[in-house]
Amino acid sequence: MQIQSFLSIAEQFKVVFLDSYGVLKNYNGLIHGVRHTIDFLRSRDIIIRVLTNDASRSQLQQAESFHRLGLHDIQEHEIITSGMMAKQFLEQKITNGKIAYLGTENSAHYILQSGLEHIPLRDIDLRNLDDISALVFLDDEGFDWNTDITKTVNLLRHKNLPVIVANSDKFYPVSKNEVAVGTGGIAKLIENMLDRKFIHFGKPDSQMFIYAYDELNSTGNYNRSEILMVGDTLQADILGGNKFGVKTTLVLSGNTSREDAPLQIRSSGIIPDYICESILT
Amino acid sequence: MQIQSFLSIAEQFKVVFLDSYGVLKNYNGLIHGVRHTIDFLRSRDIIIRVLTNDASRSQLQQAESFHRLGLHDIQEHEIITSGMMAKQFLEQKITNGKIAYLGTENSAHYILQSGLEHIPLRDIDLRNLDDISALVFLDDEGFDWNTDITKTVNLLRHKNLPVIVANSDKFYPVSKNEVAVGTGGIAKLIENMLDRKFIHFGKPDSQMFIYAYDELNSTGNYNRSEILMVGDTLQADILGGNKFGVKTTLVLSGNTSREDAPLQIRSSGIIPDYICESILT
Amino acid sequence: MQIQSFLSIAEQFKVVFLDSYGVLKNYNGLIHGVRHTIDFLRSRDIIIRVLTNDASRSQLQQAESFHRLGLHDIQEHEIITSGMMAKQFLEQKITNGKIAYLGTENSAHYILQSGLEHIPLRDIDLRNLDDISALVFLDDEGFDWNTDITKTVNLLRHKNLPVIVANSDKFYPVSKNEVAVGTGGIAKLIENMLDRKFIHFGKPDSQMFIYAYDELNSTGNYNRSEILMVGDTLQADILGGNKFGVKTTLVLSGNTSREDAPLQIRSSGIIPDYICESILT
Amino acid sequence: MQIQSFLSIAEQFKVVFLDSYGVLKNYNGLIHGVRHTIDFLRSRDIIIRVLTNDASRSQLQQAESFHRLGLHDIQEHEIITSGMMAKQFLEQKITNGKIAYLGTENSAHYILQSGLEHIPLRDIDLRNLDDISALVFLDDEGFDWNTDITKTVNLLRHKNLPVIVANSDKFYPVSKNEVAVGTGGIAKLIENMLDRKFIHFGKPDSQMFIYAYDELNSTGNYNRSEILMVGDTLQADILGGNKFGVKTTLVLSGNTSREDAPLQIRSSGIIPDYICESILT
Repeated sequence: MQIQSFLSIAEQFKVVFLDSYGVLKNYNGLIHGVRHTIDFLRSRDIIIRVLTNDASRSQLQQAESFHRLGLHDIQEHEIITSGMMAKQFLEQKITNGKIAYLGTENSAHYILQSGLEHIPLRDIDLRNLDDISALVFLDDEGFDWNTDITKTVNLLRHKNLPVIVANSDKFYPVSKNEVAVGTGGIAKLIENMLDRKFIHFGKPDSQMFIYAYDELNSTGNYNRSEILMVGDTLQADILGGNKFGVKTTLVLSGNTSREDAPLQIRSSGIIPDYICESILT
Repeated sequence: MQIQSFLSIAEQFKVVFLDSYGVLKNYNGLIHGVRHTIDFLRSRDIIIRVLTNDASRSQLQQAESFHRLGLHDIQEHEIITSGMMAKQFLEQKITNGKIAYLGTENSAHYILQSGLEHIPLRDIDLRNLDDISALVFLDDEGFDWNTDITKTVNLLRHKNLPVIVANSDKFYPVSKNEVAVGTGGIAKLIENMLDRKFIHFGKPDSQMFIYAYDELNSTGNYNRSEILMVGDTLQADILGGNKFGVKTTLVLSGNTSREDAPLQIRSSGIIPDYICESILT
Repeated sequence: MQIQSFLSIAEQFKVVFLDSYGVLKNYNGLIHGVRHTIDFLRSRDIIIRVLTNDASRSQLQQAESFHRLGLHDIQEHEIITSGMMAKQFLEQKITNGKIAYLGTENSAHYILQSGLEHIPLRDIDLRNLDDISALVFLDDEGFDWNTDITKTVNLLRHKNLPVIVANSDKFYPVSKNEVAVGTGGIAKLIENMLDRKFIHFGKPDSQMFIYAYDELNSTGNYNRSEILMVGDTLQADILGGNKFGVKTTLVLSGNTSREDAPLQIRSSGIIPDYICESILT
Repeated sequence: MQIQSFLSIAEQFKVVFLDSYGVLKNYNGLIHGVRHTIDFLRSRDIIIRVLTNDASRSQLQQAESFHRLGLHDIQEHEIITSGMMAKQFLEQKITNGKIAYLGTENSAHYILQSGLEHIPLRDIDLRNLDDISALVFLDDEGFDWNTDITKTVNLLRHKNLPVIVANSDKFYPVSKNEVAVGTGGIAKLIENMLDRKFIHFGKPDSQMFIYAYDELNSTGNYNRSEILMVGDTLQADILGGNKFGVKTTLVLSGNTSREDAPLQIRSSGIIPDYICESILT
């Protein structure tokens, strides 16, 4: 396993797609030193996009969070989230009724602002489901799992609805050694109970890549060989980049450690084009 | 699909194993008229055993619950639960340390009284797991799903333990149209997150059948051709009875309706020897 | 379920993506009347692309097959196959060694012509795997299942390789009532034996959509709202189109019958924008 | 991990259940020295039963195979196979029609001799399935996988039948480093294609344990605490013994190596009561 310098790889590309958690941030906040890398990329006129499996906060909120952490020049439009993809899907496909959701009010406000009414699952009356037209898993917070998971099962037994999982990550890190169960994990429980598959958004699916690529080409002229995807997770970032057809860099500053990387690459067959310690050097 | 009289079938056997929910009880309480059937079986000297996938209450508590519902002559020793099987397994296999559990205090008291210490998951300190020797899923109540499901995932990431699911039913009925997510469903979520399989107890596995059979033959002399298993669920009761090698009767008074039965039998390939409307006639 | 006229829908778009089997062809050959629809689309200057989960034949061979069936004006470049996507992936990611394959020589010639050596699985010596760099499932024909499925399992136990499934369809129709097991089914057997996931190509994944979209925009200027995806299978065509973000039409001339469509749509939650009997009217 | 002497453990029991492959035999034939252990057990009047997941040969054939290998005193009635369990099930549950099978003629002769007609899958006419009443997976040999796997899928699409898998092992060893795909693997492929579950026989399910236990108690008086199960595979032998409620010994002479055992035990949570190098000492 050859470890290379990220900076010397990145400068060969016109565009760099960065995962957020494990690349720019970790459980401690900003990874120390990433500001220099961002400055380096800016100085070479390399375009940056952050592609994140997050559906709980808006682009603006995510940008502000980077600012608070000290990464001041990340702009709102540079952030692309799986929640945006779910929002786009709902706008196109659900044109009437109320959208039921599991998640915080903030996540609902952000994703479901599209003119359609939305209603938290806990406020639904299971005896009167006529106007409910879809269900969205937005966030693992904002609801009572003891009551609302069972209520969701009953809702879907009573009425067949399109069900959208805005972030399909099963878990996410909350400290060096701890994870939390994410919306993707809760959705899987209910898929398993009902023997049904929901519509999942987020890497490794291509939607965020397509969105970023389209938007770049609405004003410029970029092809996929000029784009580099950088991430810390083989199954999401590297597989996603490989399938979209861009070069991929695995960094060892997050989910995948230096010790585990060779075995994980071999056993998964997901092969990054480059491997770097982090994006720092 | 030929519907037969339960009483005329039952009188051909020396022993009748009955599932509880959907056969003797439903969401309303005792199924009206089962008392006469129990009286009929007693009058013919047919031995009764109730085999139930329940791990939250002791034999005595379950017997008392039947008494309160008006079925006064069901005795403690006639009830066999998946919880008893889990208890037996733990006694044999876990001989030191503390057993962590998810469930009510009552379920823990009943199942884990075997001399070993037990501790509710919420009281565990994840930084000090040295004395934790096993984890048991006992009941879907008695803990906070929002915090304790995630804590369970972290516990099992930190320490590999034998994990026992005392009742593997994914859901159970709570009213005519509603179900609740059971311990089996929550266990599946965590199995899925960790890519691991736990040890599950309950029908269709053979342990309760073996237990009942052994106990009968400790004082009498019965062979399997003299036993009838009666249940409302193909995947649990009928498959379990078929695999244990006794004759099976599907009743249509619970999970499987008259309309659904033919399709479910054909598509599952699980074939009861007899089909009856209920055990009433 | 509202059934609409395909022609009046199609004329609202600049580009129509068509699935092949169940839309243009069926087990009998060309679906009678599709030539008129193709003529109609040409007359309106609507661009056509055929997106097919097929990895056994080249674009030219597929075009010639349409010509033989009487659809003379389908051109090579209008056909996009999952095999092309696998080929592109291999070219980018596998840059040395020999590629082992399961399939016909023809499929290997077409997909693996990229400069790398390829070798049929049956010719591999399991004691000497040093130069084998990847494995591809190309076709369900061209090898002996009795010996080569087991040999594949042993190959992957001896050496961890990237494994690519060029067509992930589990089965495909061969007559009105019969299907054949496809490469996707055989791949699943081996994934299941090894507890591993391979890299699958084909709808509903977005690669073919992205490829077609990119190629259109290399010479023109189309956005996704101007494209219609037409297919007969909810899980492949409609889900794929929905996720790529184009409007979708389900036709009832193939896998999904008029009787099954409402239930399948409700139970899957995969909602086409339009439903048409076929593309004929 | 404490390694103990098998002989000193075994002499504490009245009955020893032995797995065949990995305990008595391996790819080379008889494991050198097992004859002395059998002699030792006989000299102490310890009863022996061989419990094997094999459905291709009769008890007599299996006994003769042991004799040819030099283990002369293993008797026919001491061998219990998963095929016998499938046979018993078919006799009880399938009382008319023809049983279709996949496997050798020998396996069919042995298992399906029960009075019912049987027919190899290849001889079935898919247009006339009226008299076919069940399907059995008997052996991985004796049929053409290229044609008959697909034919099986079509058979089960045309007619819903009970499907029995007489040996559910997914693979079995054929040499030090090679395995072969077993009937259980092929059955899984078809279960996956049809989204259906078949009825599987063999360890870890309890049927063979129950059968042996019943037969012992038809002439004697043994309880489960007097029985020891010995096997080389955690998921089949040890889990099966644990669930049946007897003490279990893992031997390291087959599927589970000394290096892998601690990790496999921890990660599976399947805990043998004893661990021995082999049954030799």
